[in-house]
Amino acid sequence: MENISVMGDPDKLREECGVFGIYDFAGGDVSSAVYYGLLALQHRGQESCGIAVSDTKGPKGKVLSAKEMGLVNESFTPEMLEKLKGDIGVGHVRYSTAGSSTRENAQPLVLNYVKGTLGLAHNGNLINAPELRHELEYTGAIFQTTIDSEVIAYHIARERLNTNTVEAAVGRAMQKIKGAYSLVIMSPRKLIGARDPFGFRPLCIGKREDAYVLASETCALDTIGAQYIRDVLPGEVVTISPEKGIESDTSHCISDKEHSRCVFEYIYFARPDSYIDGVSVYNSRILAGKFLAMDSPVEADLVVGVPESGNCAALGYSLQSGIPYGQAFVKNSYVGRTFIKPKQKNRETSVQVKLNALKEAVSGKRVIMIDDSIVRGTTSDRIVRMLREAGAKEVHMRVSSPPFLWPCYFGTDVPAREQLIAYNRSIEEICEVIGADSLAYLKEERLEEMVNGLGVCKGCFSGTYPLVPPTEDIRGDYDM
Amino acid sequence: MENISVMGDPDKLREECGVFGIYDFAGGDVSSAVYYGLLALQHRGQESCGIAVSDTKGPKGKVLSAKEMGLVNESFTPEMLEKLKGDIGVGHVRYSTAGSSTRENAQPLVLNYVKGTLGLAHNGNLINAPELRHELEYTGAIFQTTIDSEVIAYHIARERLNTNTVEAAVGRAMQKIKGAYSLVIMSPRKLIGARDPFGFRPLCIGKREDAYVLASETCALDTIGAQYIRDVLPGEVVTISPEKGIESDTSHCISDKEHSRCVFEYIYFARPDSYIDGVSVYNSRILAGKFLAMDSPVEADLVVGVPESGNCAALGYSLQSGIPYGQAFVKNSYVGRTFIKPKQKNRETSVQVKLNALKEAVSGKRVIMIDDSIVRGTTSDRIVRMLREAGAKEVHMRVSSPPFLWPCYFGTDVPAREQLIAYNRSIEEICEVIGADSLAYLKEERLEEMVNGLGVCKGCFSGTYPLVPPTEDIRGDYDM
Amino acid sequence: MENISVMGDPDKLREECGVFGIYDFAGGDVSSAVYYGLLALQHRGQESCGIAVSDTKGPKGKVLSAKEMGLVNESFTPEMLEKLKGDIGVGHVRYSTAGSSTRENAQPLVLNYVKGTLGLAHNGNLINAPELRHELEYTGAIFQTTIDSEVIAYHIARERLNTNTVEAAVGRAMQKIKGAYSLVIMSPRKLIGARDPFGFRPLCIGKREDAYVLASETCALDTIGAQYIRDVLPGEVVTISPEKGIESDTSHCISDKEHSRCVFEYIYFARPDSYIDGVSVYNSRILAGKFLAMDSPVEADLVVGVPESGNCAALGYSLQSGIPYGQAFVKNSYVGRTFIKPKQKNRETSVQVKLNALKEAVSGKRVIMIDDSIVRGTTSDRIVRMLREAGAKEVHMRVSSPPFLWPCYFGTDVPAREQLIAYNRSIEEICEVIGADSLAYLKEERLEEMVNGLGVCKGCFSGTYPLVPPTEDIRGDYDM
Amino acid sequence: MENISVMGDPDKLREECGVFGIYDFAGGDVSSAVYYGLLALQHRGQESCGIAVSDTKGPKGKVLSAKEMGLVNESFTPEMLEKLKGDIGVGHVRYSTAGSSTRENAQPLVLNYVKGTLGLAHNGNLINAPELRHELEYTGAIFQTTIDSEVIAYHIARERLNTNTVEAAVGRAMQKIKGAYSLVIMSPRKLIGARDPFGFRPLCIGKREDAYVLASETCALDTIGAQYIRDVLPGEVVTISPEKGIESDTSHCISDKEHSRCVFEYIYFARPDSYIDGVSVYNSRILAGKFLAMDSPVEADLVVGVPESGNCAALGYSLQSGIPYGQAFVKNSYVGRTFIKPKQKNRETSVQVKLNALKEAVSGKRVIMIDDSIVRGTTSDRIVRMLREAGAKEVHMRVSSPPFLWPCYFGTDVPAREQLIAYNRSIEEICEVIGADSLAYLKEERLEEMVNGLGVCKGCFSGTYPLVPPTEDIRGDYDM
Repeated sequence: MENISVMGDPDKLREECGVFGIYDFAGGDVSSAVYYGLLALQHRGQESCGIAVSDTKGPKGKVLSAKEMGLVNESFTPEMLEKLKGDIGVGHVRYSTAGSSTRENAQPLVLNYVKGTLGLAHNGNLINAPELRHELEYTGAIFQTTIDSEVIAYHIARERLNTNTVEAAVGRAMQKIKGAYSLVIMSPRKLIGARDPFGFRPLCIGKREDAYVLASETCALDTIGAQYIRDVLPGEVVTISPEKGIESDTSHCISDKEHSRCVFEYIYFARPDSYIDGVSVYNSRILAGKFLAMDSPVEADLVVGVPESGNCAALGYSLQSGIPYGQAFVKNSYVGRTFIKPKQKNRETSVQVKLNALKEAVSGKRVIMIDDSIVRGTTSDRIVRMLREAGAKEVHMRVSSPPFLWPCYFGTDVPAREQLIAYNRSIEEICEVIGADSLAYLKEERLEEMVNGLGVCKGCFSGTYPLVPPTEDIRGDYDM
Repeated sequence: MENISVMGDPDKLREECGVFGIYDFAGGDVSSAVYYGLLALQHRGQESCGIAVSDTKGPKGKVLSAKEMGLVNESFTPEMLEKLKGDIGVGHVRYSTAGSSTRENAQPLVLNYVKGTLGLAHNGNLINAPELRHELEYTGAIFQTTIDSEVIAYHIARERLNTNTVEAAVGRAMQKIKGAYSLVIMSPRKLIGARDPFGFRPLCIGKREDAYVLASETCALDTIGAQYIRDVLPGEVVTISPEKGIESDTSHCISDKEHSRCVFEYIYFARPDSYIDGVSVYNSRILAGKFLAMDSPVEADLVVGVPESGNCAALGYSLQSGIPYGQAFVKNSYVGRTFIKPKQKNRETSVQVKLNALKEAVSGKRVIMIDDSIVRGTTSDRIVRMLREAGAKEVHMRVSSPPFLWPCYFGTDVPAREQLIAYNRSIEEICEVIGADSLAYLKEERLEEMVNGLGVCKGCFSGTYPLVPPTEDIRGDYDM
Repeated sequence: MENISVMGDPDKLREECGVFGIYDFAGGDVSSAVYYGLLALQHRGQESCGIAVSDTKGPKGKVLSAKEMGLVNESFTPEMLEKLKGDIGVGHVRYSTAGSSTRENAQPLVLNYVKGTLGLAHNGNLINAPELRHELEYTGAIFQTTIDSEVIAYHIARERLNTNTVEAAVGRAMQKIKGAYSLVIMSPRKLIGARDPFGFRPLCIGKREDAYVLASETCALDTIGAQYIRDVLPGEVVTISPEKGIESDTSHCISDKEHSRCVFEYIYFARPDSYIDGVSVYNSRILAGKFLAMDSPVEADLVVGVPESGNCAALGYSLQSGIPYGQAFVKNSYVGRTFIKPKQKNRETSVQVKLNALKEAVSGKRVIMIDDSIVRGTTSDRIVRMLREAGAKEVHMRVSSPPFLWPCYFGTDVPAREQLIAYNRSIEEICEVIGADSLAYLKEERLEEMVNGLGVCKGCFSGTYPLVPPTEDIRGDYDM
Repeated sequence: MENISVMGDPDKLREECGVFGIYDFAGGDVSSAVYYGLLALQHRGQESCGIAVSDTKGPKGKVLSAKEMGLVNESFTPEMLEKLKGDIGVGHVRYSTAGSSTRENAQPLVLNYVKGTLGLAHNGNLINAPELRHELEYTGAIFQTTIDSEVIAYHIARERLNTNTVEAAVGRAMQKIKGAYSLVIMSPRKLIGARDPFGFRPLCIGKREDAYVLASETCALDTIGAQYIRDVLPGEVVTISPEKGIESDTSHCISDKEHSRCVFEYIYFARPDSYIDGVSVYNSRILAGKFLAMDSPVEADLVVGVPESGNCAALGYSLQSGIPYGQAFVKNSYVGRTFIKPKQKNRETSVQVKLNALKEAVSGKRVIMIDDSIVRGTTSDRIVRMLREAGAKEVHMRVSSPPFLWPCYFGTDVPAREQLIAYNRSIEEICEVIGADSLAYLKEERLEEMVNGLGVCKGCFSGTYPLVPPTEDIRGDYDM
C-alpha cells in the first residue's frame, strides 16, 4: 500500500501564489473579507495559507496573524477569524517552487522593522534572490525562511532608513530586486501594492463601500462583492491610505511593448471569470479554441474538453467549427485532493478514480478532445485510451497552448526539460506517444492575438526571456 | 460569526445511501476495491462511511470493520485498508433521513447471530420499520441503533432458525419488510444482493477476474475496472458463492408494470456515467433537456446548466433547439463541503462564494438556464439574480423534472411540504418568486419516455404511491 | 523507529472498568457530574469512556450518549457536555479483557427494548457469557458487540416481558448470569445498581443535595462533593427513584463468608482515598506494609516505594520498622501514557524515560524497596539495577501481595501463566532474576486481616475460585 | 460551561525554558536523543517544543527542524524523528514570559547568515532586548518573532563578520546582551554552549560514547544514559567539535561572589534528581525542610508535602523533627494538564478534581503541611480547608522559600505585585487568609546555606537585583 497522494495533477503546470489585501477606511474588521478573498484565489496555491491583520485604531504596529499548511477552508475557524481583529489585512495562498514546502515558509511574512511592522505577501519569483541574500548576509542579516519575500522585506527595511515613506522604500527596493513579483504590503497605516515592471503576475484594485482591495484576480473582488477599479500597472506602486485614497508611483514603469505577462495565467492558471489587465480569461480561452479550429481543423462528430481546464477552449472550437460541443467525462469531485493511490498491480489507476468516460456520449463518435497543455503526457495518454475504450472511433487532440520546452524563472513550476513530452520529440512523435489520431497545438504567433495584443512572456516556448535568467538553476528547493 | 456550515446544498434533494460488495473467489484482499468503489459512490452519501471484510480462508465469522463519520477519502488510511484483510467485503456511504446522524448509525451493520456473522449494507427506507421494531421488542429484542438495517438483520437472524441457508432467510425476511431496499449482505461464505420488488433503488452486478461485485451504480464497477454483468432485478435475491457462482431467487418478483424506480436517480442522484436497469443516466438527462426544448421552447442566445447537475439537460436542450450551449458560471471547487458561512450583514453570500457568473459569456444575452429541480427555490432566486447582474438581458428557467409537492417514504430526503416552493403556488407564481422571465418544468408524462419506458415512482409529484404510506411521518429522526 | 507505545505498564495487572450513575430528583443536568465522576475513576480504565443521559422530564426513552476512545479529559468538550442534557445519567471508563478494544465496544451500552430505553454500564466479567450468547442466538438474537453487557442487556429485556418492573427484570437476569458484575443501569425513570452475590467488584452509593449517585469507588463521590451513604451489598439490587428513594432487593444475597471481593482492589486498583465495603484502601496498604515489616524484616537504612503504587505500603513498613521512609525515584509525569519507545539498540529504556533514581537519596544506603506486585518482573529487574547504579549498597524487595500464579476470570487482566515470574520459580529464584539481595511477599493468610476480616477471592494466588471457572479460556479477545 | 482550562497551576511560578544540544562525533543520528532529552526537561516548559538537526557529513548548512505547540510526547511521531536526520542537534521546550505564546515564537530559532546556518535555543530573559532591537532596526534589521533569541542571533551574525570563529562571535555578542541566558547553539560543524556571567540559569555538559551533550539539567543526561562531566561556568563559552573536543573561553567570567543563580531552580523548577553547579536539588530541598524544622518548630503528629513539589522539604522536616512523614493527598494523575473547568455554581472545584485528602491519614491529627512557595495563595487556602474537612485537628503551614514580593527580570514568570499574597501583608495576615493555625517561611539567610554556599539571586525576595532592571516592565507579551 503506497502512501496517500496529496494532490496535484502531476501533468499540470503549477502557479506559485495568490495575494490579497484590504483596508477598510470605515474601520470595519476585514479578516472575513480576506478569508473569502483567499477562498476565491485558492486555485493559485493549495499548500499553505495565511492571514495577517492590523488595527489602525489600536497600538501602532500590532499585527495578528495565522498561517497554516493546507486549504483555506480547512485552516480557519470562525473563532480564529473572530480573533484576527483589524481594519487592514493581507492574505496569501501558496504553492511553492522557490522555498521548500514548510510551515516556516508560509506567508504573509510579518516583521518588525525600524518603522513598526510590515505584513507582506508575494506572488512571483526573483531571479537575483541568491545574490541579494549573500549581499545582505555580508552586512549581518539573518534569514529565517527560504522565501524571496524575506529578501524583499530586508530591502524595504533598509531603504526605509533613507526614505520618508514606506512606499518610497518599496520603490527603491524595486531597483534592486529582479524578476517576477506582485506584492501586497501592509504597513501600520497604509496598504501598498506593487507589480514588477514586466507585469509577469497579475494584480488588481477593487473597492467595496469604504474599503479598498488588492487581489491577484478579479474573481476575488466578485466573491466579496467589491467593484473592479483597475489593474495595478506593470512597474507601478500604489499606496492606499485614508488621507489620500489611491496614490500611484509609475516611475518604475517601462514601455508597453516590453511587458511580459505570463500567458499561462490566461491559458490555465487564472479562473475564467477573472479579467487580467482588462482581458477576459474566459474570452482568451474561447479564442484559443477558435484559433485551433481555424488553424488545425479536422472532421469530427463531437468536441469535448478535458475537465475542467479544457472546457472553455472546447466551447470555442465548437463555436468556430460548428461541430457539437459535448461532455465526455465525469469527474469525481470528492477525490480532488487526496486519496489512497492505487497499487501498481491493481487495475484501478489514479486517473480512473478521478475521471470516467461517458460511453453513451462518445461511443461510435469521432471526438476532438481539447486540453490546455501537455506537460509530461502521462495523463493525456490515459485519457485518450479511456475515450477509445468508451467506443470513440477517432480521438483528435488539440492543445490550447504551444508546446513548451524551457524552464520558467518567473513563478511557474515547470518540470525538468527531460520530463517534458515535447523535449526532443516532433509533434508527430508526441501524437504517437499519447495514442491520438491527430494532434495540434496553438501556434505561438496566436498568443498576442489571444490576449488582445498585450505583451506576453514566451520564455517557456522559445527559451528567450525578457530578463537574462540566472546561470544556475534557482528554481528547486533552496532549503536551509 | 456563525458556525462552520457543513453542507449540503439545502436547495437539493438528498439521496440516502450507496452500497457496495465484492467477493474474490481467488482469495485476494478486497478492502481497497471496496474503498475505490465507495469513492465512486460518494455522491450518494457524505455523512458516514464504512467497510467490513471477512476472510473466507480464516476463522469462520471473523469480521473486521471500520466506520467513520465523513468522506471516504478522509476516513481511510493505507494502514487501515492494510489491516482490513479479507476476500469478501461490503461497504456503505450514508446520508440519512431515517435514523439520526451519529457514528452508531454508520453502516455496514456487523453482527453475530446463530450462524456466525453478517455484514449488512442497506440503501432505502422501510415504511413498516416502527411496527416491526415493536413486534421484535415484544419477543425480547434490543435495538442499539435507529437504522432500518437493524430491523432487517433481526428478521434474517430469526428466519435463519427455520431455513437452511442465509439466502432463504433473506427471502423470508423480504416477506415482512415493506418499502425501499437495496441490500448487500456478507455471510461467512457468501455475498448476497437483494432488491425490493418495486425496484425503488438501483443495484447492479459486475465481475473483475475472479471477483464478483455488487454496487448501487455501474460507475463503481468502472472505477475498479469491473465488467457490468446485469442489474439485480426488482424483487430478486442473488447469492454469490464459489461453489455456484451467481444463483438467483426471483420468487419475490412482481410484474414489470408495478415497478416503481425512483425517477430522481435518473434526474439527479446517480452519476451520469452510470446505467440503471439498462438505461443510461446521461441519456435520460439529455432526453429531459430535449423534451423541455420541444415542450417549452423560447427564443434565446444561450443555453446554460446550473453546475453540475443541470449541464446534461442543458446540452440536450441545445441539441434539440439549436441554441448554442455555453458556460455561464464558474464554480469554486475548493469550497464544496465546508467553509465559514458569511454573516447576514456581510455582502458575500454562500452562493456567491461557491459560484460566480461569467460576465463575458452572458452579457447582453438572452439565457436559458437549466436545473434538475427546484426544492425551496432559495438558490434559484440568487442564481437568476447573478445572471442578471452579469448582464443577461433575459433569463428563462427550465427544470428537468416535474414540480414536486409530496413527501417521499422510499429513501429520498424531501423537506416538509410547507418549505417546497411548489407548495400552494402556480408555475407563474414560482417564476415570479425566483425572478425569471419564464419558467417551465418537465411534463410528468415525459418521465417514462425519458427512461425508455421503465416503471417509475411518481409519488413525490402526484401523492400517489406504489405502497400505502404510513399514517404518521416516519421520515425524521427516530432518536433513541 | 518503533511505533508509539500507547501506555500501560506491561508489568502491572489491569482492572477492567469503572462505572458511575447519578439521578438528580431536582431535575438538574447531570452530564458534568458524570464527567467529573469519570475523571475520578479514570485509573480503572483508560481505553475508552462514555456518558449517556436521559431527561425524565422529556420524551420517554430519549437517551443521548457519547462514547470515545481515549481518556475522559481528552474525549469530552464543554460543547459536548452542554448537549448531553438530562437529569439521569450513567458513565463508564474501560480497559478491556473480554471484548476487543474497539469503539463499538465502548460503554455505556444504550438500547431500545420493549419498555423504552436502557443505559447500562458494567464492571466485571461473566464466566458463562459464551453459553448465554449461544442460547440467545438460538432464539434469534443478534449481537453487535463483544462485551458481556450486551448479554446482560438481552436477559433484562427478555425478563422484562414477564415482570412488572425493570428492577425485577434485573433480579431475574441475575439468576442467569454468572461471574463478576457491578452494574449501573438507567431506565427512563429509574437508576438501578446491582452487584454480583460474591461482591467481586465494588459499588457504592452517595448523595449530593437531591441527587443520588452510584460509583465504583468513593473517590468519585468526593470529587463531585457527594456524601457517602453506603456500599451496595454483594447480591443486592438497589433502585433509585423520586417516588421511593432507594429501594433494596437483597433476595440474591448470600452469606458473608462466601463473599469474594477482589483483593487487588485494595492492593493496587482502587485509589487510596477510596473506601470499599467500609474498609479504607489506604489503610489496607499501610497494614500490608506493616505485615511485611513484621513477617520479613531486614536491616536497612531507607524504605522506599516504587512510585506511585508502592508508596503507601512503604510508609507502613517504615512506621512498623522505624527505618526512615524516603523517596528514591523521580517520575516523569509528562510521559505517563504515550511516548516513542526507544529502539532496542539505544541506551535509553522506557523505564529510564519514566523513572530516574535519586542518587543523593540512596547512595551508600541499604534500601528496602516496596512494590504492590510483581507480574512479569521486567520492570522490577530494571528498577533494582537502577538503584544499584545510583549507589545503593543493598536492595531488599518487599511485595505487598502474595505471588500469583493463576488466571483471573472475574475482571482482572492477568497475563498467561508462562509469562508470570512466579510461575515455576521459587522465591529465591525470583529474587535472583530481579537481582535483589532479598525478596519477600505478603503472606496469603494476612489478606483478610489486611481488609478488616472481609471475605476476599484468592483465586489468582491459589487457583481455587469461588465459582467453577469455564473449561476454555474466555478471557482473551472474543472478536467478531 | 466555561472553556477548557489548559493547565498551569495559577498558584505556581513558571520557568521559561529548557535547552538541549548534542553532537555525535561518530556520526550517529541524534534526533531521538534530543527527543528523550526534551522529555526529561518537559517540566521546564509545556507550551511549545522544537528540534533542529544538521548533518555534518551532508551539504553544509542544511538544517532540518520541527517546532510544535504542545508537549514533546504529543508533538513528535516516529516518522518525524526518522526524517530529522543529523549528527548534531539542538532542542527546546518553552513556557514564555517574554514573547507571546505563538507558533512563530517556538524555538530553536533556525537561521541562515553569512557563514551558513545556526540553530539556537535560549533559556532566560534579556533586560536590554528592546534597546538592542531598536539599535538593530536602525541599521536595517527585520524581526520576525518576539523572542530574545532573535536579538542574540543578530548580534552573533553581525559579530561574525569581524571574527574568525562562531564562538568568538558568540563571545563578542555576550558583551552586548545583558540579562539571563543559557544558550545552546549549533553551527554547521560545532556545538556551542554559553551561560551569562551571573549564572542565572543552569547548563551542564555530558558525554555518551562519542557524543557530547549540553542540557539545562543533569536529569536529561541521565535519561539518555550520558555521563555528567561538569557544568558550564557562569560566563563561560564552551565549543564542542571533533577536532578539539571541548574548548573553553572563560574571558567573560566574573568572580564567584557576584554569581546570582536563580534560587527557585533549587526550590521548585528543577527536577530533584538534577544537580546544578554541583549541588543536588533534592538535597537542597531536604535541607530547606530541615531548616524550617529548626527555625519554625511546632508540635504535631504528621508532616506532609503538598504534592508533588512539597514532598522533599516535608521529608527533610520529618527527618529533623522526628515527626512522622505521611501522605495526606491523592493526586489525580490523569487530569494534570487539561480538563473542563467546573462552573462556579457547581460544588466541584478544580482543586478538588485534581486533589483529594486522605481522611484515613489525617483524621484527628495535627498536621504540618509543607509547600515550596505561596504565590497568590488561592490553592493553599483550599488545601488547608480540605485537610480540615478530612478531620485534621490543626494545620500548620511551612513554606520552603522566603516570601516574595518583587518582579523577576531574569526568566521567571512572577505575577503582578498586587496579586501576590505577600504584598502588603504580614505573615500573620497571610496565615489568616489561608486559614492555617500557624505559618512560617524559610528565612532568606538560609538560602546560601541551602545551596552549599553558592551565590544566588534574591531579587524577588528583596527587590535588589544583580543587574539594574529596566525602568519599564518588559516582562509581559511583546506582541508584534
